[in-house]
Amino acid sequence: MSRPRTLADITTPALVVDVAAMERNIARMATYFAGRSCRLRPHFKAHKCLEIARRQLAAGSCTGLTCATVAEAEAASAICDDILIANEVVDAGKCRRVAALASRVRITIALDSAAGLERLTAAAREAGVAVGVLIDVNVGQDRCGVAPGRDAVDLARRVIEVAPGAGRGGLLLRGLMGYEGHAVGIAERTAREAAVRQAMERLVSTARMFRDHGLPTDIVSAGGTGSYDISSGFREVSEIQAGSYVLMDTDYASERLPFEHALGILGTVISRPTAARCVADCGHKACTKDHGLPSAKTPAGASVTALNDEHAIISLPPGCTIEVGARVQLLPSHIDPTINLHDVIYALDGDTVVGIWAIEGRGYAEQRQLTND
Amino acid sequence: MSRPRTLADITTPALVVDVAAMERNIARMATYFAGRSCRLRPHFKAHKCLEIARRQLAAGSCTGLTCATVAEAEAASAICDDILIANEVVDAGKCRRVAALASRVRITIALDSAAGLERLTAAAREAGVAVGVLIDVNVGQDRCGVAPGRDAVDLARRVIEVAPGAGRGGLLLRGLMGYEGHAVGIAERTAREAAVRQAMERLVSTARMFRDHGLPTDIVSAGGTGSYDISSGFREVSEIQAGSYVLMDTDYASERLPFEHALGILGTVISRPTAARCVADCGHKACTKDHGLPSAKTPAGASVTALNDEHAIISLPPGCTIEVGARVQLLPSHIDPTINLHDVIYALDGDTVVGIWAIEGRGYAEQRQLTND
Repeated sequence: MSRPRTLADITTPALVVDVAAMERNIARMATYFAGRSCRLRPHFKAHKCLEIARRQLAAGSCTGLTCATVAEAEAASAICDDILIANEVVDAGKCRRVAALASRVRITIALDSAAGLERLTAAAREAGVAVGVLIDVNVGQDRCGVAPGRDAVDLARRVIEVAPGAGRGGLLLRGLMGYEGHAVGIAERTAREAAVRQAMERLVSTARMFRDHGLPTDIVSAGGTGSYDISSGFREVSEIQAGSYVLMDTDYASERLPFEHALGILGTVISRPTAARCVADCGHKACTKDHGLPSAKTPAGASVTALNDEHAIISLPPGCTIEVGARVQLLPSHIDPTINLHDVIYALDGDTVVGIWAIEGRGYAEQRQLTND
Repeated sequence: MSRPRTLADITTPALVVDVAAMERNIARMATYFAGRSCRLRPHFKAHKCLEIARRQLAAGSCTGLTCATVAEAEAASAICDDILIANEVVDAGKCRRVAALASRVRITIALDSAAGLERLTAAAREAGVAVGVLIDVNVGQDRCGVAPGRDAVDLARRVIEVAPGAGRGGLLLRGLMGYEGHAVGIAERTAREAAVRQAMERLVSTARMFRDHGLPTDIVSAGGTGSYDISSGFREVSEIQAGSYVLMDTDYASERLPFEHALGILGTVISRPTAARCVADCGHKACTKDHGLPSAKTPAGASVTALNDEHAIISLPPGCTIEVGARVQLLPSHIDPTINLHDVIYALDGDTVVGIWAIEGRGYAEQRQLTND
């Protein structure tokens, strides 16, 4: 397969990134955090791409990277030595992989159960390594996490009991986290701010209880792209795990944040059955619709009316002359699972392809390894 | 990575197939078509897995395989020498790949535009091969396809003009197709039957016009899992492109078809925050929700209330004792895009892993090739 030199050479469907727009997003977020005590730990799950993560880290103001899975952390460890897996890890095999990672980089895991504690401790002791832990507090998302307050303190105390002793591994309590996932997507600023503040009160009041009980709060992690400038205003919050800001999507764009669309889904028109409709090859297999249908960036005035597996059905404005074989570009409604569908991102400067970036953290590394056996 | 021997060894999230249930589905469909003049051409896009396609072909009553993309056809050509790409192919690079395939296997492409005709002809002539063509007729889905009747006949005549001559390549008109995609998913049988019949009338009346004009109708392709036994009742319809029947999903199960659920999404409980809720690691990155949320096969009485990227949020029945670390199994609402998220399917006989089947047709082969350069 020859490597494409311009947009026209790219085999569709494909992801394209406007590098200049992405760099402006990175710079804007780094500038926001410059000089603050609260730091940024960009979420790798948003894009799963080492080249992008490298640029985020290079911009400064970062403590390291946030990941959602062990496989993402394994990928990210190639460029970063301080990784937070902001999710529970309980499977014995994955706990062993966490311990293996902990022998090479500083690794910290979210924890919300006694069973998770036991499993992680067993793996850390077996490997003779220290694995960092944050108590995951339910700040209102009602997904994972222990209740704020006493339950969080109780679990934290149990972590202290399995701290690494002389010559043996164990768990190092580093603090707590609470992800206000129920609030980051509220489009209207005042309502979002109120929901985020309520969530952060639950987290910071628990952090104060930690301090009162002599429990460490070196890391108090929260926040997303929709709340970074609200959650970081609480002095107890030490870092923000925002991710989507770097490429943006239409869901977050509705919040009027100071970040630009940098990612598109490139497609080719395969059918033009009527004056009012065309069909492009960038369907649901190339772009998820869990946060709603994507928008049409091009052609101007068009809108996506449906996404089937291999088809984007596009409503065209009067007089639109787009023909079979022409290119269209969609803007994703949710970047994380959309990027997960692809193996590479084509990096563009205008119409010139300036890089082909692998999405190292996509899919299931464990499964790919089996197909290579 | 060691290869799992039982369900308990499988790294989650993962796809698991109940091989016995799948074989019963294959046998039931083959029995339906045995002795009929209408044949089956199973749709590879449903699962994208050569091992499954091999078993479908081995069961008999098949003319070959249906594919949705050139990359799927390239994968399928390893085991099948008669492939229909039931979709438009217009990109110059992909037309060249179709021509390359046509030098090895019998290949037939859906066509609905003059621009597509020109591009496909150019590639076929350049390679000196005959590429088969079906005129794609819009039977009511309003996606791709020319209007039934005269428009279809007109395009067919233009294909005849570019037939391969002595010593040079070109296009071979083989007939027509019309996919009643707007009708196959109607849950209620009477309403579905009416919608399918109306669609098929459009297709068969066009097929009769083809015959009246001396145009070939060697292939008249239609049908899906929700309509195979309706569309195949029209004597003009020569083959059915059903796919989902082999593994099934909850969307098709609502139609009370004679096929069983054979595919599950295996997950691990990572959090059990309350008596009424647990969270498993088989989220939207492992299972799509474009046809609705998946169902919980296990634990009994549970239901999925939300799918986030890495989290399935599961509502538990009173008294449910499932613990952190336990396994759950979900039933997908739509198998095609769900399977596309994975690299392998674990084949099960009870709890024993009897095979690890690669999903050769998943994702974007073109992109994977670039990452290997």
